[in-house]
Amino acid sequence: MDPLDIVSNLHKVKPVYQPVISAIRHNVIGYEVLGRYDDGEKLISLGDFFLDTDVPEEFKVEVDQHILEIAINDFLESQRTGLLFINRNAKQLMVNDGEDLLNMLILYEEKGFPMDRIVLEVTEHDFDEDFEALNHLLLYYKTYGIQIAVDRVGAKSSNIDRIRQLEPHILKIDTRTIRNHNSDGFQDIMYSLSMLARRIGAAMLFEYIEDDFQLYFAWKYGGRYYQGYYLAKPELTIQAEHKLTVNIGEKVSEYIQREKSLIEQRLVHVLNWEERIKAMLPQWSGNKKVDSFIELVTANFNKESFRMYICDSNGQQISSNFRKQEEDWVVEPDKKGSNWAFRPYFLENMINMKTWNRGTLSDIYSDIDTREMIRTFSFPLSDQYFLFIDIRYSYIYENESLLI
Amino acid sequence: MDPLDIVSNLHKVKPVYQPVISAIRHNVIGYEVLGRYDDGEKLISLGDFFLDTDVPEEFKVEVDQHILEIAINDFLESQRTGLLFINRNAKQLMVNDGEDLLNMLILYEEKGFPMDRIVLEVTEHDFDEDFEALNHLLLYYKTYGIQIAVDRVGAKSSNIDRIRQLEPHILKIDTRTIRNHNSDGFQDIMYSLSMLARRIGAAMLFEYIEDDFQLYFAWKYGGRYYQGYYLAKPELTIQAEHKLTVNIGEKVSEYIQREKSLIEQRLVHVLNWEERIKAMLPQWSGNKKVDSFIELVTANFNKESFRMYICDSNGQQISSNFRKQEEDWVVEPDKKGSNWAFRPYFLENMINMKTWNRGTLSDIYSDIDTREMIRTFSFPLSDQYFLFIDIRYSYIYENESLLI
Repeated sequence: MDPLDIVSNLHKVKPVYQPVISAIRHNVIGYEVLGRYDDGEKLISLGDFFLDTDVPEEFKVEVDQHILEIAINDFLESQRTGLLFINRNAKQLMVNDGEDLLNMLILYEEKGFPMDRIVLEVTEHDFDEDFEALNHLLLYYKTYGIQIAVDRVGAKSSNIDRIRQLEPHILKIDTRTIRNHNSDGFQDIMYSLSMLARRIGAAMLFEYIEDDFQLYFAWKYGGRYYQGYYLAKPELTIQAEHKLTVNIGEKVSEYIQREKSLIEQRLVHVLNWEERIKAMLPQWSGNKKVDSFIELVTANFNKESFRMYICDSNGQQISSNFRKQEEDWVVEPDKKGSNWAFRPYFLENMINMKTWNRGTLSDIYSDIDTREMIRTFSFPLSDQYFLFIDIRYSYIYENESLLI
Repeated sequence: MDPLDIVSNLHKVKPVYQPVISAIRHNVIGYEVLGRYDDGEKLISLGDFFLDTDVPEEFKVEVDQHILEIAINDFLESQRTGLLFINRNAKQLMVNDGEDLLNMLILYEEKGFPMDRIVLEVTEHDFDEDFEALNHLLLYYKTYGIQIAVDRVGAKSSNIDRIRQLEPHILKIDTRTIRNHNSDGFQDIMYSLSMLARRIGAAMLFEYIEDDFQLYFAWKYGGRYYQGYYLAKPELTIQAEHKLTVNIGEKVSEYIQREKSLIEQRLVHVLNWEERIKAMLPQWSGNKKVDSFIELVTANFNKESFRMYICDSNGQQISSNFRKQEEDWVVEPDKKGSNWAFRPYFLENMINMKTWNRGTLSDIYSDIDTREMIRTFSFPLSDQYFLFIDIRYSYIYENESLLI
């Protein structure tokens, strides 16, 4: 479509509303507003218009202001509570120092639509040219109560240093990345992002959810909000009670039961491994014969493990490495004297094991040497010595509860 | 300096070597090679030459090849084992499809310097123009055993999606960022990066370490390798036994003792909180009178907490929120019915609490509502109901063991 046609026929430009759903109460907590052009026969997305770098930013501002005005009026008329999510690109925001948007919002605050109901979505990648100026503008907006969401996280907007600097209220995760990337890789990213979100106090919103698996994924990785065709399509009107395509409460309830069952199965593994080591403890004769003790353990964990060793309470390895090669366990005495206390959670886990006299299973991680996904099961042999059993990937792969 | 002077006086260009130190054995595991120009009086860094975008990439390749040749010969002559870290920018690598570097390394492999001793440092940010082509080249290098390090992570190279795609062996963390940023922010980034590194099986190397605090920081955040003036300056010759400025073994040993002591102090808090709740358990009369039970708890945790509530084993909140405002506890009954099972580790912690009948303290995180750094202490009231006590920041701040 010709951008001029759009700007000179603003009366044909309309907002549509896509619900945003909460994992907490399973209800609609707000709407993202999107632009459509009504050519008399059908509604045409204005996506191309807004993404076209040849269209003057002033045009985009004009169209966006028009859409926003209708949207807030719709909210006020329908007495709908909740959040209104709007999109602005960096260049557009910089037009007139971002005052157009702010002035309109100030006006509507006076009419009863408080600014803390606005969530402004920006794309971090978009900031390349003048990150500082835009960050400054967003800080200014925040002082009025406007919430900030970083859009397209997981795809383009994955610079964690910038995300942290923006201190957004919401990270919008592009769920389509699950389909485009291999899923393993996306899990690594999601894990890091969910930890970042937790540290900076940002809520995660998963958008473009199109099937049950993606909703499960979003829930599992700590998504507080969901959006996508699977739950609700964009609609022309705001409904007082929005009917969703799926019963989200039921779905989440299924996920919870599934997750609990997997965690319990994993616990069965841990308890079983603990029992097996406890049964061997009478053979543990202190730090003089560490290697011969491990030899016993290898026979008992031949199926599960590919590597084991013993450390003291300072993280110092006091045994050889025992490493499985083909069917045999190879002894590597040169690893004795290595110190592993620098590894995340190492000392904390050790002190917990000592205190409660119980083993601990690590989360899944990638081994630096083999580059395979593994877990480590560790157990206190005494107050001072700790056994580490690395669980090999093929065993993990065969047991779903260890895989997740 | 005039780039032409450098290229036409290659005999004046020399490598210097900066040691890379391991947290595992506290020894030098390799050297990063850097370029210097010997003007007869002093050694001038070639940093400006390599960073100057006006200098033709072919010039840089020529100088870098010259330096590398001397470096490998130095390694071979001194019979030094370990890794050789070299830097190449993206454009330089793309000259002649990266064959110059590869051909030289193949030649030296025949002379006894295996390619898996080379660590090629690249900057992810540098790839903007043609990420796919460069990623492809690096994959090709990897098939020869060459290791890949992503340089300047934490500063410019913080795009986690790209870092994951590169699957580097090493992430080089720019420790200077601790000085430039506020330290809190850098901790958020480090935490996310260390989790990413763990997931993708990359070792973290902290560079530019210039004092004891930075070394401690590097160790604490899972740094496997260290580099910087605090440990060793770049030198003209490779020594068989490299003497470091600080006794790294002693330093790490201090950090371990300090960390253990803090973790033990934290445990004292947890045990004390557990005892206090256990003493109140006789008043717990099941899910009928949840709010009145919490009232009892608020009086007991007035100093530590600012918010508490009770959930069932499906993560459903069955009590009101109790929230401290000024000196009083405000009751928010509308929070009843919220579901929190989507939060990371929620169900796992709950099942652990139930199984071992013990409380659990979360790591430190930023509360979405207050945006303050908090922790949550939780305790199983029964098989089915769990008490959550959010610890306020001011209490955490007063107790170092809770802060780290």
